[in-house]
Amino acid sequence: MRIGELSRTTGVAVPTIKFYVREGLLPAGRLTSPNQASYDDSHVRRLRLIRGLIDVGGLSVATVREVLTVVEAPGESVHNVLGAAHDAITPRPASGSEGLPEAREAVGELIRRRGWRAEEDHPAAEAMAVALAAFQGLGQGAFMEVLDDYADACERIADADLAYVGRTTEVEGLVESVVVGAVLGGAVLSAMRRLAHVDRSARRFEGGEGEATG
Amino acid sequence: MRIGELSRTTGVAVPTIKFYVREGLLPAGRLTSPNQASYDDSHVRRLRLIRGLIDVGGLSVATVREVLTVVEAPGESVHNVLGAAHDAITPRPASGSEGLPEAREAVGELIRRRGWRAEEDHPAAEAMAVALAAFQGLGQGAFMEVLDDYADACERIADADLAYVGRTTEVEGLVESVVVGAVLGGAVLSAMRRLAHVDRSARRFEGGEGEATG
Repeated sequence: MRIGELSRTTGVAVPTIKFYVREGLLPAGRLTSPNQASYDDSHVRRLRLIRGLIDVGGLSVATVREVLTVVEAPGESVHNVLGAAHDAITPRPASGSEGLPEAREAVGELIRRRGWRAEEDHPAAEAMAVALAAFQGLGQGAFMEVLDDYADACERIADADLAYVGRTTEVEGLVESVVVGAVLGGAVLSAMRRLAHVDRSARRFEGGEGEATG
Repeated sequence: MRIGELSRTTGVAVPTIKFYVREGLLPAGRLTSPNQASYDDSHVRRLRLIRGLIDVGGLSVATVREVLTVVEAPGESVHNVLGAAHDAITPRPASGSEGLPEAREAVGELIRRRGWRAEEDHPAAEAMAVALAAFQGLGQGAFMEVLDDYADACERIADADLAYVGRTTEVEGLVESVVVGAVLGGAVLSAMRRLAHVDRSARRFEGGEGEATG
């Protein structure tokens, strides 16, 4: 198909498509004449992946490029590729707040207590420590008390995610599933947690017990 | 204290502090002479809140301003203030992807099935629908099958969050707790979900069962 049809199919404007090609996110089309290129279904799929990661996941163009490099990486063990994909999408918040060593220790304790097979200096562990140190700095260190409730919930979610991803067989599809699941699943989780908050807050502060409104 | 001490106490550079004052995020100090202002503990606390929301929560300066307006809003019922705080921190992803009407219907069904007291056009419901439509567009509509596992986990998290927040009594502190909990708690949740993924992936793809590494 020509670039105009690619644009209509995906809802992505032509100049944006050209930008993604220049930035290396989208492979160039096959030249069919000196000034015309042809695109196929792989371009449609890749564009949807790019837009999902940017619009819904809130990733930057640079992070999307990193993630796509991982999605396309050949060979390597599945576990290592999954690890690299996770690293690419884990934000690295500015650290250096006071209380960070104590927060790191609390994260390490959590990992040992749960028996999780994860390095204590994993980027996600560091991101969690930075967030916990920020809680502490705001006088809300009591948040530590709910960590195991969060961990119960996360184990349940991770099991559901892995069971879902496990239906895919080839590695490339698997890695794309994991990346999409991690980013879009994170957006679903964040939105759903807020909805559950709305429900719990309504039950608690609006009065009435247990019956739905409307 | 002078601005230099405020900067040392919070780790926020002096020009950044001045920027926050200009942008209306931080109240100006009390003028003690024509070119010198004095700051107190309320400024320290506010700066920590701002940095937590920006660095850990990833909020923009504009969103932080919106959130702080809510934190400072007088009166109103607690439920309404909590709702406004949630609205301010719920991202509004670009919508308009195909499959959105079906995704909205799926979210509505979920809300009814769970008996959640939340409007079906709540911003968080819309954010969830956009993410689900993106899954669908990538051929991963099967993600719908894990929504109830996510919902179980979110109810557990929301209960823990509300129990935690419920220890605070006055409304202003309550709203700040909710905002901090929603934003920083979201960062903790996101990092912890990734750690749980690392664990589950290690167990599944690295071989070995149940025993921790190292």
